[in-house]
Amino acid sequence: MRLHDHLTSGNGYKARLLLAQLGIPYERIEYDIDNRATRTPEFLAKNPNGRIPVLELDDGSFLPESNAILWYLAEGTPFLPAERRQRAEVLRWMFFEQNHHEPNIAGLRFWIMHAVPTTPLMDLWRPAKRAAGEAALAVMEGHLATRLFFVGDRYGIADIALYAYTHVAPEGGFDLAPYPHVRAWFARVAAQPGYIPITQG
Amino acid sequence: MRLHDHLTSGNGYKARLLLAQLGIPYERIEYDIDNRATRTPEFLAKNPNGRIPVLELDDGSFLPESNAILWYLAEGTPFLPAERRQRAEVLRWMFFEQNHHEPNIAGLRFWIMHAVPTTPLMDLWRPAKRAAGEAALAVMEGHLATRLFFVGDRYGIADIALYAYTHVAPEGGFDLAPYPHVRAWFARVAAQPGYIPITQG
Repeated sequence: MRLHDHLTSGNGYKARLLLAQLGIPYERIEYDIDNRATRTPEFLAKNPNGRIPVLELDDGSFLPESNAILWYLAEGTPFLPAERRQRAEVLRWMFFEQNHHEPNIAGLRFWIMHAVPTTPLMDLWRPAKRAAGEAALAVMEGHLATRLFFVGDRYGIADIALYAYTHVAPEGGFDLAPYPHVRAWFARVAAQPGYIPITQG
Repeated sequence: MRLHDHLTSGNGYKARLLLAQLGIPYERIEYDIDNRATRTPEFLAKNPNGRIPVLELDDGSFLPESNAILWYLAEGTPFLPAERRQRAEVLRWMFFEQNHHEPNIAGLRFWIMHAVPTTPLMDLWRPAKRAAGEAALAVMEGHLATRLFFVGDRYGIADIALYAYTHVAPEGGFDLAPYPHVRAWFARVAAQPGYIPITQG
């Protein structure tokens, strides 16, 4: 397999972390996303939406969208439960991540890490993104107050999907002090066999 | 089953359409989302994220997130393929919808339909949302140029997830004239057995 990736991306890290924990060898291809390397005709043939990560499978097909990659890789492994109601719960948290969490928490981190020049829109948008990100963190904090992991009290891809950008939220200016249950869950995730940090390619 | 819902919501409509097509009877409960009816303690116990739709299952548990509801209901039916690679492709399009499509296309429609008072942020944000929405429509148009439906040339929940807000995109000010393949797909979706319009509760 090949992973079309960018090292600082939390979405890319989701795939890297699960591939490492599954012990699947793969080739990682790095893209300079600041210089539109994912908007070339060659890349758009892999993902017409012009974004990493994309998993290139052994049959030569391309699978975009980080959480779809997680689901594909985890199928039939302990990282994804077999029971229908629990599987729906995994998806519930992964869609929450992509709709309510990532746009805000990853968004603010991206602006800082990629030194995006500030615009009047960004200045007005920043506090709205921060408030929405805090709301998502509060939902996570409430859920983890009585649970070890997001679904079935067992580590799995819902945890990976939410961990990726939450544990680096301070890089986007979020203070995680008010979320002790989230921080305790960080430690449980980082203690899993095969764990790698986001900085590891 | 009970569906906690709001009639004009495309996310709610996804569940309503599939429930109708599966012939599953359910009770629909309407919420006045303009007056924070989904932010009461009673509702937050159903979905701590404070949003419809939420599917209340016969065991009394609550499943939020429209696309997780679609997946749960479609499992084992012709609306969701059984093959692993195709299932990943269904999720690819459903995550695309929640991350790149819905925030922009549904977002602009929401501001208009719910007469949200304009703020300086909204004035600057509107053109950015419109451009991002157009980009998502262009991705759909390219995909449908050579396909009848989103995955496996068979109608299913990826189509339902994307149809819900795309077919009412003009209510958010989007002109669909440049997307003939998308419009032809609308007709194929609306011709499916058991189809109901978004206005039908």
